[in-house]
Amino acid sequence: MAQKLLVLGGGFGGLYAARELRKRFGDEAEIQLISEENYFVFQPLLPEVAAGAITSMHAVTSLRELLAGVRLRKATIHSVDFDRQVVTVFQGVQRRPTEIEYDHLVIAMGSRIDLSRVPGLEDHALKMKTLEDARRMRAHIIERLEHADVTFLPEVKREALTFVVVGAGFSGIECIGEMKELIDRSLKYYPNIDPSEIRVIAVEFAPRALNELPESLAAYAVKQLEKRGVEVMFNTGVASVTGRRLVTSTGEVIPTRTIVATIGNAPSPVILDMDLELTHGRVAVDRTMQAKGRENVWSLGDCALIPLKDDAKERDDFAPPTAQFAVREASQIAQNIQAAVQGKPLKPFKYKSRGALASLGARRGVAEVFGIKVSGYPAWLLWRMYYLSFMPGFDTKLRVFLNWLLDSIRPRSVVALRAPEKEGARYVHYAAGDPVFEKGNRSDGFYTVVSGRFEVSYQDETTGETVTREVGPGGHFGERMIMGESTRFGTVRALTDGTALVLGQEEFTKLSSTFEALGSYLEDHFNRVYHIDWHPGAAKPSGEPAEKSPTRH
Amino acid sequence: MAQKLLVLGGGFGGLYAARELRKRFGDEAEIQLISEENYFVFQPLLPEVAAGAITSMHAVTSLRELLAGVRLRKATIHSVDFDRQVVTVFQGVQRRPTEIEYDHLVIAMGSRIDLSRVPGLEDHALKMKTLEDARRMRAHIIERLEHADVTFLPEVKREALTFVVVGAGFSGIECIGEMKELIDRSLKYYPNIDPSEIRVIAVEFAPRALNELPESLAAYAVKQLEKRGVEVMFNTGVASVTGRRLVTSTGEVIPTRTIVATIGNAPSPVILDMDLELTHGRVAVDRTMQAKGRENVWSLGDCALIPLKDDAKERDDFAPPTAQFAVREASQIAQNIQAAVQGKPLKPFKYKSRGALASLGARRGVAEVFGIKVSGYPAWLLWRMYYLSFMPGFDTKLRVFLNWLLDSIRPRSVVALRAPEKEGARYVHYAAGDPVFEKGNRSDGFYTVVSGRFEVSYQDETTGETVTREVGPGGHFGERMIMGESTRFGTVRALTDGTALVLGQEEFTKLSSTFEALGSYLEDHFNRVYHIDWHPGAAKPSGEPAEKSPTRH
Repeated sequence: MAQKLLVLGGGFGGLYAARELRKRFGDEAEIQLISEENYFVFQPLLPEVAAGAITSMHAVTSLRELLAGVRLRKATIHSVDFDRQVVTVFQGVQRRPTEIEYDHLVIAMGSRIDLSRVPGLEDHALKMKTLEDARRMRAHIIERLEHADVTFLPEVKREALTFVVVGAGFSGIECIGEMKELIDRSLKYYPNIDPSEIRVIAVEFAPRALNELPESLAAYAVKQLEKRGVEVMFNTGVASVTGRRLVTSTGEVIPTRTIVATIGNAPSPVILDMDLELTHGRVAVDRTMQAKGRENVWSLGDCALIPLKDDAKERDDFAPPTAQFAVREASQIAQNIQAAVQGKPLKPFKYKSRGALASLGARRGVAEVFGIKVSGYPAWLLWRMYYLSFMPGFDTKLRVFLNWLLDSIRPRSVVALRAPEKEGARYVHYAAGDPVFEKGNRSDGFYTVVSGRFEVSYQDETTGETVTREVGPGGHFGERMIMGESTRFGTVRALTDGTALVLGQEEFTKLSSTFEALGSYLEDHFNRVYHIDWHPGAAKPSGEPAEKSPTRH
Repeated sequence: MAQKLLVLGGGFGGLYAARELRKRFGDEAEIQLISEENYFVFQPLLPEVAAGAITSMHAVTSLRELLAGVRLRKATIHSVDFDRQVVTVFQGVQRRPTEIEYDHLVIAMGSRIDLSRVPGLEDHALKMKTLEDARRMRAHIIERLEHADVTFLPEVKREALTFVVVGAGFSGIECIGEMKELIDRSLKYYPNIDPSEIRVIAVEFAPRALNELPESLAAYAVKQLEKRGVEVMFNTGVASVTGRRLVTSTGEVIPTRTIVATIGNAPSPVILDMDLELTHGRVAVDRTMQAKGRENVWSLGDCALIPLKDDAKERDDFAPPTAQFAVREASQIAQNIQAAVQGKPLKPFKYKSRGALASLGARRGVAEVFGIKVSGYPAWLLWRMYYLSFMPGFDTKLRVFLNWLLDSIRPRSVVALRAPEKEGARYVHYAAGDPVFEKGNRSDGFYTVVSGRFEVSYQDETTGETVTREVGPGGHFGERMIMGESTRFGTVRALTDGTALVLGQEEFTKLSSTFEALGSYLEDHFNRVYHIDWHPGAAKPSGEPAEKSPTRH
């Protein structure tokens, strides 16, 4: 009976493992790959997508094209039952779980971003992990330029024109380089912005950048960026973040509305839940990449901790989480799985890095390959060719190359395309004294207090006196908009550092009209606090008869 | 003092009006255009974006490039005070309103889509108005193919492989043509889908398609689509829609998970609020395009009702809402505004349609131009050139043309790129007997009932008996997920036709942990109904100490 070989994850590790398994087993095995998306992302190219140097569709390739002979299942992985040898997934918009059996399982689920260690960072920073992140960052930057071009308020302009990238590793350096390029090229369209008003800042906790490159090359890279006007702060961490400022570990306050976080790689929560031995959230495997204690479970790539020698202890004794290593690991893992099926001995994974390359944006790079240092445009070309080499199959390589060529001759645009995102429920952080909203502002949501104390003040409609009340954790403000008030009735400011949860206007209005218990609570609240007689029932979905409209007495 | 000329809206009408005003006034006027987006959308090309025939960036052009000498303000229009001659907008993420003064105001705000007349359509149909709509449709279609390829359930497969477009006007016909093309070209990647399993259906209320074309040409267009396997239903309206079926006015039930609505043009709510004379929600103007009763307020394009003759009464006595007319109106409106400023007489708008063109997708079209009928590929080329001609300036025409050329040689891909949209709060419609969710399903949100009656059934944990309870309007179910249950405890089905409001898991969890009144209510609810002792406090934002975790006793 044909072996069932199941690969979880469609990044470098998973994709190559599935291909190598197919090469080795041919039709003697049923090979399946499960991925959340049906495409493969060239992650290192994402900053170029954000800058508009490359079309977003040219930074991804369809997995079905790359996986001939392999079954592709687009689904979300829920859990793994190692005893029954079954993976539970949710596919489509199904809520019903589907179970997939396996004989051998390859876990290649990569890593995700976790920014929870710095207050506010998770809620206020942009990431650079997915294609949507890249698009979002691009639209965000252009919108800041649009706003800066028309605002009358100098502090708003300064915040809008200050851009911060956290982390000066490969991702951070490339990101800030492309960001500076995007801004520089766009300025000609914005007559009210002077180049001197712009600040682009990299904040790095370590004393140097680009850890995997020799120090001289990293210093050269930083110098190139500084020549282009980028500020780089070393030995500087991030203490806290709000929607309008970043506070560094050295106490410096940077007013900004754009923070890009390139730090914070963390394990996938699905892996944390697995009944496997983990080290620092990564799957503990032996040198053959078998999971400890489970002979038919294997792991590679960012989510695995693969020792490069016996008695591995230091960080450098393990395979680094790079594409270069993932692809070699995939080759060895396929060989080992075949050996395991055939009852032959397994081999340990062995590989020595050929070098490292980094893009500095604007078609400049730095590289060290086989000990030789390269910089500038040739290094950037090398960097691009390097990633092209990972595309499996000549056809695919050619197509991707032609796409990149076309992108290079295309002029850039300053179109700010942003998916109109639902407000949902988001956390907003405030420093003591920060305004939350002011009388007359557009009503943007329903606020509930997570922590800290806030002061609500308004003019009593009957007496004309100014009334203030304090709201603490569990309390709320901003609910008056449910009565149809499109601008704020009162002013709210933070008395202490604090965090509020903002529920979008649409969500709040719909919920209050439908959820009887909430409607009653608000009815009572308006009565007690504002002496207003209000009843739920304003927002009605299509085709429904409207109930009593909201009234004020 | 220089005249302040303000244009609201960045579509065909607004863009051309601003350009014409700049040509006529030069530096003698301050001309400003306010638009929600900083780019112009080639709306007729959106279905091709959805099909992947054209890159999304090639269906838009940056407004700043097209408006040299005109101030562009990216902002949301809130209201107009015609007496003070001031427009109030919100720009950036500001909640603080900004006021812009004008001497002459041109209202060119277009139309929006309103699907509220058919139950469920607003909540379950895809639209084709913005670039994001096009992207969303593309990703949606590919995801249905992905799901159909892997599902074990025949009814799910049938629903996933049935695609319905409502409306057989220019937009509907082009949409269904491109949709069929996308599906046909993608099938080779999906080994488990047989072409015969696919249904692509157009539903049209009138007895014929493409109203503005001669009947013979419209009949030819429909015949071409039918030859390609598209089903076209005439004299058929939509009675109701849920997430899994469409019911026609003739009582036919079509199981489907894809409904695209190309009908339902309605006025912008901002215009409805204006202190102006409106007819059917459009600005009532006289033949010179001045708003009735206001000499310095003008309107053109979709949002205006412009008489083409004195005593205009029938629909054909007014300018149709097309790009062709909007561009000519812009020319006349600029001439009239200049005449008004100089105290000279105004001229009525006069124009006779040169013809109409429609795309059938897959690079086929039908057209009637100056009385000559054209069809097939030449008609499609004509159609493309027609829209290219609207691009102002040779540079822009050339650039857009080259982009389109490149797109034509690019192979298509089946990458399903979708912005991970927040759940927010959405309405879902059910027919009597429909399941809402079943025990073991993935928990996807908190449900509150808008209308109808639902039955919740589960096994009591102590007695083992099956317990059922009914939930009606104002009530709720699905709240147990807040205790960390990632799969459903009970089963819910609709007893009658009904509608529920689903609040996304993330939003519900955050709100219940923060909003004290809601947390208390749920605590009490779990106690009374399930005899479970639960306390709020599970989800905490970054940097905050966790409170008591949820416990079950």
